[in-house]
Amino acid sequence: MTEEVWHVHVQRVSYKETDQMRVVHHANYVNWFEIGRTEWMRESGLPYSKVESLGLLLPVLDLQVKYFKSAFYDDCVAIYTRLNALSAIRLGFYYEARKIENREMTFPQNTDTIEKPEGELLATGSTQHMWVNAEWKPVRVPQKAPEIFALLKERYRY
Amino acid sequence: MTEEVWHVHVQRVSYKETDQMRVVHHANYVNWFEIGRTEWMRESGLPYSKVESLGLLLPVLDLQVKYFKSAFYDDCVAIYTRLNALSAIRLGFYYEARKIENREMTFPQNTDTIEKPEGELLATGSTQHMWVNAEWKPVRVPQKAPEIFALLKERYRY
Amino acid sequence: MTEEVWHVHVQRVSYKETDQMRVVHHANYVNWFEIGRTEWMRESGLPYSKVESLGLLLPVLDLQVKYFKSAFYDDCVAIYTRLNALSAIRLGFYYEARKIENREMTFPQNTDTIEKPEGELLATGSTQHMWVNAEWKPVRVPQKAPEIFALLKERYRY
Amino acid sequence: MTEEVWHVHVQRVSYKETDQMRVVHHANYVNWFEIGRTEWMRESGLPYSKVESLGLLLPVLDLQVKYFKSAFYDDCVAIYTRLNALSAIRLGFYYEARKIENREMTFPQNTDTIEKPEGELLATGSTQHMWVNAEWKPVRVPQKAPEIFALLKERYRY
Repeated sequence: MTEEVWHVHVQRVSYKETDQMRVVHHANYVNWFEIGRTEWMRESGLPYSKVESLGLLLPVLDLQVKYFKSAFYDDCVAIYTRLNALSAIRLGFYYEARKIENREMTFPQNTDTIEKPEGELLATGSTQHMWVNAEWKPVRVPQKAPEIFALLKERYRY
Repeated sequence: MTEEVWHVHVQRVSYKETDQMRVVHHANYVNWFEIGRTEWMRESGLPYSKVESLGLLLPVLDLQVKYFKSAFYDDCVAIYTRLNALSAIRLGFYYEARKIENREMTFPQNTDTIEKPEGELLATGSTQHMWVNAEWKPVRVPQKAPEIFALLKERYRY
Repeated sequence: MTEEVWHVHVQRVSYKETDQMRVVHHANYVNWFEIGRTEWMRESGLPYSKVESLGLLLPVLDLQVKYFKSAFYDDCVAIYTRLNALSAIRLGFYYEARKIENREMTFPQNTDTIEKPEGELLATGSTQHMWVNAEWKPVRVPQKAPEIFALLKERYRY
Repeated sequence: MTEEVWHVHVQRVSYKETDQMRVVHHANYVNWFEIGRTEWMRESGLPYSKVESLGLLLPVLDLQVKYFKSAFYDDCVAIYTRLNALSAIRLGFYYEARKIENREMTFPQNTDTIEKPEGELLATGSTQHMWVNAEWKPVRVPQKAPEIFALLKERYRY
């Protein structure tokens, strides 16, 4: 790996995301990582709506989350996303959710690219995905959609 | 109206449904009412999966909820559902969510038909729906799916 | 009413919010309106976290939603919020959810104040709330927290 | 390990749980596993409400899910839960979500104990938890709540 580039997306914790422990319910991080990955794809020129219009789906095969600190109502949370695995048929992402200060929210569209995640680490996660077609049969992306594979390869730093 | 028949479905409050006020977040009642209506349809011989296989959808046009008492984690909640409006193109349901005692959960599949709702009233609600086809164009059910309309009419007591 | 001022908050539809009708599930609008109301309060100098630190809660008594058009995955949705009822013990909000173009997302923090809602109307909604203390007993805000009532009154245009 | 005993809880897939791929969104399994674990605890004489009344919380440290087959709207899903790690300060659960036939739903309260999971495997999962007190400080359960530890040990088969 020569250099890492992270995509970052910022959002606030909503009331609905808390539970009676007064912290964010752990299942919400799974949604946050999905939003991180979706925004990563948009920024890479691969909005997921375009992917689906090519007849491709990208279901989740495997999910892992490690929880370090709790997030609270109204916290600003930055979701950092990075592509960490790429093959002809699979894709993997790594995520960090970090609490940041309000004043750091300066970018339009809540989204940016940075070199080093900042803020207090709340959780890390990873997901593995497989390319399938509309009938849920595995698809080799370099053959089926070479322009998508080229864009992904460009973003892959390992 | 000669007689009312209610469909009842029972479920427990999950941890995920609580918020930091230590009560069930108000948006969950919307999901509960949907489950009540889905189970009502199944019991009427109209499982929603069958409705969709006929190319029909039943989107929500209007939703109202009145909240009276809070529900708490682990409460047993009975969702009472009744058809309260029926025309060639529309359908309306009325709901009551009530807290019941554990010992009242005696039926298989969590579901039953009764004449009078019991338990402590938590919330009431209503939804209005319109029949549309796969292209979201309005559909007259008596013409398009007379067997469905006949089943609905049989359940309609007003 | 002399002039209306709307608070607007913009967000994207996430994949999790869609259902198998390929549109946003109707229950999500309830969450969106909560986010709109929370952001309205923050902008009014009343972040909900501060309200709770004063020992006050603001549960929902009544909820109404009317659905006009479907929202789709990846749509940019603007949530417009306005205070439409205010008394010593109650509060009411009115909401509009509208689809907007991406290019209209130009403000930091996704939030702004405007005079006239723009975009394609998806749904309208309203909620009624009551002020209660930590024991869920009704509270008269002008007596219990006059500084909060003053801020609310300033925003109330009817 | 001499013998395995699984707790099983059955529920139906609701419409809200589907997404526009027409399958259950992957984040819902996290909620299902929580319900499985909660019902496991209730059956073990440790309803989570009792645990919290003793001033104990059981936050999630680690979550893993592997997805094998999709679940669809209206499917009957059995969630199988087993305690697979136990120490003075930690607890681990293992889960399987399986699709079963409707006719297999014969037990009251949707819950039972069995020796061998049945049905088509949809996903497996595991969670690791730590005992903490109301201030989120780690707690040694054998000292702090010996009756709870005794009940857990009785259920632990490794």
